Amino acid sequence: MPDTDPSARPSPPAMAMTDMMAMEDLGGDRFRNLHNQPNSNRTLFGGQIVAQALAAADRTVPDRAAHSLHAYFIRAGSADMPVEFAVERTRDGGRFSTRRVVARQKDITLFSMECSYRVPLRGFSHQKEPLGTTDPEGSIDINEIVDPVAHPRAPYFFDGRFPIDIRVPDVDFLNRRGYFHRNFWLRARGAETLDDPAVHRQILAFMSDFMLPATGLAYHTSPLPGPEIFVASLDHAMWFHRPVRCDDWLLFETESPNSEGGVSLARGSVYDRNGLLVASLAQETLHLPRDL
Amino acid sequence: MPDTDPSARPSPPAMAMTDMMAMEDLGGDRFRNLHNQPNSNRTLFGGQIVAQALAAADRTVPDRAAHSLHAYFIRAGSADMPVEFAVERTRDGGRFSTRRVVARQKDITLFSMECSYRVPLRGFSHQKEPLGTTDPEGSIDINEIVDPVAHPRAPYFFDGRFPIDIRVPDVDFLNRRGYFHRNFWLRARGAETLDDPAVHRQILAFMSDFMLPATGLAYHTSPLPGPEIFVASLDHAMWFHRPVRCDDWLLFETESPNSEGGVSLARGSVYDRNGLLVASLAQETLHLPRDL
Repeated sequence: MPDTDPSARPSPPAMAMTDMMAMEDLGGDRFRNLHNQPNSNRTLFGGQIVAQALAAADRTVPDRAAHSLHAYFIRAGSADMPVEFAVERTRDGGRFSTRRVVARQKDITLFSMECSYRVPLRGFSHQKEPLGTTDPEGSIDINEIVDPVAHPRAPYFFDGRFPIDIRVPDVDFLNRRGYFHRNFWLRARGAETLDDPAVHRQILAFMSDFMLPATGLAYHTSPLPGPEIFVASLDHAMWFHRPVRCDDWLLFETESPNSEGGVSLARGSVYDRNGLLVASLAQETLHLPRDL
Repeated sequence: MPDTDPSARPSPPAMAMTDMMAMEDLGGDRFRNLHNQPNSNRTLFGGQIVAQALAAADRTVPDRAAHSLHAYFIRAGSADMPVEFAVERTRDGGRFSTRRVVARQKDITLFSMECSYRVPLRGFSHQKEPLGTTDPEGSIDINEIVDPVAHPRAPYFFDGRFPIDIRVPDVDFLNRRGYFHRNFWLRARGAETLDDPAVHRQILAFMSDFMLPATGLAYHTSPLPGPEIFVASLDHAMWFHRPVRCDDWLLFETESPNSEGGVSLARGSVYDRNGLLVASLAQETLHLPRDL
């Protein structure tokens, strides 16, 4: 994803989260998005596609809550044309509903996803506790530690084009290598007026592809490299454990259990400010150094 | 999954792994299986469906290696009729190929899966190290610690009906509650003569649904409960990191980061005897106590 010196351009205002999930209903469980979130090279931000695909599926399951999704990024999309989401009602069972969503631009498949919904059920309860000890107030805005030379893509992603605020635990966050857990806090801007739990899950899906693809990369080199390393999200899985509000800070505790053969696996646990585990994440990313 | 006192029946010999992945080619990228692996209630064992779906997809990508799969179990299958696997060639790109597989019995959809293949690529390398310190020779056969009263389903799963050997680190393995990491060793029987790396990935897929669904359950109650708890695999994800041989012992390091609302998430890291991370697993399971 080559950058064309984005730091030299003025920052366009980020699309509001309230508008990001708006869709035109084309009938027949087909939906067209109204807003795109561009990456620096005008490809589509992966988190947008996951979020809008979930928003499309959610429109076909009004009475059940999504508890998981599994997706593949098949081709890069363009931020300069709308995306169409076709939903297939795979099954509506007694307890669970399953949906498939295919995202296309001009009949070219970009992305496919399956997701599952459930009725409320009673069962056992436990959760993994967060490892981190910082809180968002004791953390620092990532813009305070960005070095434009060491992190050439940082200005594009962090200075306001994405409707996400980012705080990190310490000043070495972007420079540390070989460190296993990488923790950070994310918060969606402009989500305060939204009350639909499904929309907050969609926003979490948007946010979940924002820092995760860099997790494995950061063990070896800058998590915000220049064009010398090609980075692309390959798949994406989310499990929604508990209700979430994305207008307050969320702790992303991430790790990369593996990198081999050009692909890295990253996992994440998302906690709210009270330490409740609201979601788990998994994603494999292509990390391809151009000089190898 | 109610048991009909399986301990009273003589144990049928397990299907050999060499036969499990055999398929009849129906043409048009459709395949029919030749062998089923029954659960105790004559539903289909989930690991069989994942493995055979991967075997079907693999037949359409002879020159690339699978690196990930994501699947949903949609309906329980019957062990008393064959399963048909329809493969869709989603994409063949320069570096990656994507396939979708739908498994059906009599036109009823049981299962859907997407999987991704890649050419060999050069990149970064790291892996999470195993936490465990035991080795398979110092571990004990699970049959030595089974109590038929406390673990009513144990005889069905462990005494030879599945072509899998199981060893666990200590005698308390089945009785420990609230313990975070549950480690065990699995080995496929009858896989010694197989040399195709793709078939070993298929066998690993078969094995990966064997103990994982009990991971979260074991925090609260017997991992092998009777009919008082309904257990069903909901989804399944695998990432294949390195070549694997399933005829030697593999260490499964598993944890359940969450259980809430009747569903539990389990994750697993699969290591070979030398400590190489060969695969990562994730699965959500329905754990439904019938008296709640």
